[in-house]
Amino acid sequence: MTMKLKYNIAVVGATGAVGQKIVKILEERNFPINNLKLLSSKRSAGTKIQFKDTELVVEEATNDSFHDIDIALFSAGGSVSKRFAPEAVKRGAVVVDNTSAFRMDEEVPLVVPEVNEDDLKAHQGIIANPNCSTIQMVAALKPIQDAFGLSRVIVSTYQAVSGAGTQAVEELKTQAQQILANEEPEATILPVKSGKNHYPIAFNALPQIDLFQENGYTFEEMKMINETKKIMHAPDLSVAATCVRLPFFTSHAESVYVEVEQKGLTTEELWKVLEHAEGIILQDDPATQTYPTPLSASGKNDVFVGRVRKDLDHENGFHMWVVSDNLLKGAAWNTVQIAERLIEKNLLLK
Amino acid sequence: MTMKLKYNIAVVGATGAVGQKIVKILEERNFPINNLKLLSSKRSAGTKIQFKDTELVVEEATNDSFHDIDIALFSAGGSVSKRFAPEAVKRGAVVVDNTSAFRMDEEVPLVVPEVNEDDLKAHQGIIANPNCSTIQMVAALKPIQDAFGLSRVIVSTYQAVSGAGTQAVEELKTQAQQILANEEPEATILPVKSGKNHYPIAFNALPQIDLFQENGYTFEEMKMINETKKIMHAPDLSVAATCVRLPFFTSHAESVYVEVEQKGLTTEELWKVLEHAEGIILQDDPATQTYPTPLSASGKNDVFVGRVRKDLDHENGFHMWVVSDNLLKGAAWNTVQIAERLIEKNLLLK
Repeated sequence: MTMKLKYNIAVVGATGAVGQKIVKILEERNFPINNLKLLSSKRSAGTKIQFKDTELVVEEATNDSFHDIDIALFSAGGSVSKRFAPEAVKRGAVVVDNTSAFRMDEEVPLVVPEVNEDDLKAHQGIIANPNCSTIQMVAALKPIQDAFGLSRVIVSTYQAVSGAGTQAVEELKTQAQQILANEEPEATILPVKSGKNHYPIAFNALPQIDLFQENGYTFEEMKMINETKKIMHAPDLSVAATCVRLPFFTSHAESVYVEVEQKGLTTEELWKVLEHAEGIILQDDPATQTYPTPLSASGKNDVFVGRVRKDLDHENGFHMWVVSDNLLKGAAWNTVQIAERLIEKNLLLK
Repeated sequence: MTMKLKYNIAVVGATGAVGQKIVKILEERNFPINNLKLLSSKRSAGTKIQFKDTELVVEEATNDSFHDIDIALFSAGGSVSKRFAPEAVKRGAVVVDNTSAFRMDEEVPLVVPEVNEDDLKAHQGIIANPNCSTIQMVAALKPIQDAFGLSRVIVSTYQAVSGAGTQAVEELKTQAQQILANEEPEATILPVKSGKNHYPIAFNALPQIDLFQENGYTFEEMKMINETKKIMHAPDLSVAATCVRLPFFTSHAESVYVEVEQKGLTTEELWKVLEHAEGIILQDDPATQTYPTPLSASGKNDVFVGRVRKDLDHENGFHMWVVSDNLLKGAAWNTVQIAERLIEKNLLLK
């Protein structure tokens, strides 16, 4: 295999919230593209999307769509990935999959480049992009784990509606307008579109993201727990999660409690490590009321950390507040970042 | 002292968000009132407030306002309490104070009736009503402490804007309308009116409630930590808090992690104890997506608990989601409840 200078890229789910962001980032990053193919379901085929000077027409995804593709970026739901990702690999494409379809497969690397880019080397055609709420948390945990050792994580999330898709974004807008006009809010999408019950999200908080498992945890919570252990190569790390959907549009925030292994660690030492960590921006100064918020983090690729402080009762415990754009680092940017590293590391299939 | 049948009651801060709720609850509970005196600052004096069939005129609070008052319910800010509460006590009134002015005074009982009503007996004229976010949490923790022992609490809060007063409520409404109309939101109140910086709360999350202390914690977080230990008579209980303001109007929600002392406890046993606890309503059934939310809890006096589940890595750890109306159980209702218990227990001064 020789290193090409430009690549044939397919974006599957190009008309979705994340797909659109992927196309935008490919443009912004001036990604080395020979041919860009935008794919979707039959329903959305025909949609026109601007890429640099060209108007591209979205095509319906078929097995043959992946002929001659070098990298296929999937973001169209788990069933689409399950159907087409193996077909894309068969035709020589490396797949970066943004759904949960393959994340826990032992043979599939689950990658956040700042955390475990070396795992890319073992890929067999498919690389999974982790869940949005997991990505930003492990980006903040990894430098701590490396510097001080990490034994325990307890997270409570504050998650934006865009994580549930464009219909959820519209639902929040509509309900907010209804409530401000003293009308009854109509709920048909959240917390889970396929669920039996729907509750208003506007001016509310819903302690359910994704469906419930038998054990009383939601799938979102289990994703955070299981994916964190896999990405960090830490099967024995204690991880607990409570995931909550909130009425804002973009960026997830997380209240994260960690216990480190090193004794006597100070907040200043923790700051120093976070300050120099790849992909992390420390925004933490109580004196000037400096901390990240969903609004301040939106539109940016980085993971922002603030409110770092030592637990007052536990010598090895620290609290922090981690915020990042769920559609960028949490999805589209992490996906494109993986594609960039695949090229840099010469890990394509052809 | 003989037990009276009807009492002279003063409400200080009667025109505020909590004061108005207190008046409403006194009416709803058919509180045994002889004379109801509504007090406020000079600025709000003259306001008319309906109580049962009568229109009452709010008077400016002076020392003499408390002449002949049996119970004075204060909810007009710490400085007003500091100035007038001792004057009210001097004149024979028992004060139930809704501010943070006296909460940590050793001589002042800090009371949530379901948790520590016996502490009322030691009062010396002033009883403090705890912080809203503390009240609902300790109401849920107490039955767990009693049944199984409690060693550790880590809470992340999801707090309504009404906790910051009526101006904050208006700010959220105005900003929401501005953002929905694609205008820049104007921020002048939150996170803290007296703070240097103000950030939009609409469609956002602010990890600051009240001002910062030297140690990097906010006063709200320190209130939760210190008040919980005091109310529960558990100076050695490990308590950690992260407090976050969110864009909803009423009811605080809390993601609470607890560690119990009893080994091998099951979720079912925890449910049973919560189900029979005073003031608690268990709303917890993943199969039917049953859990409390700020919207569902608003307007109700109870503390609602859901999402109870065992930690997957820690044998003694459990997670739960606690929601209650911050203006009712978190403030007005707990205050009136204390007044009722003072009468029942014959603990007035005259």
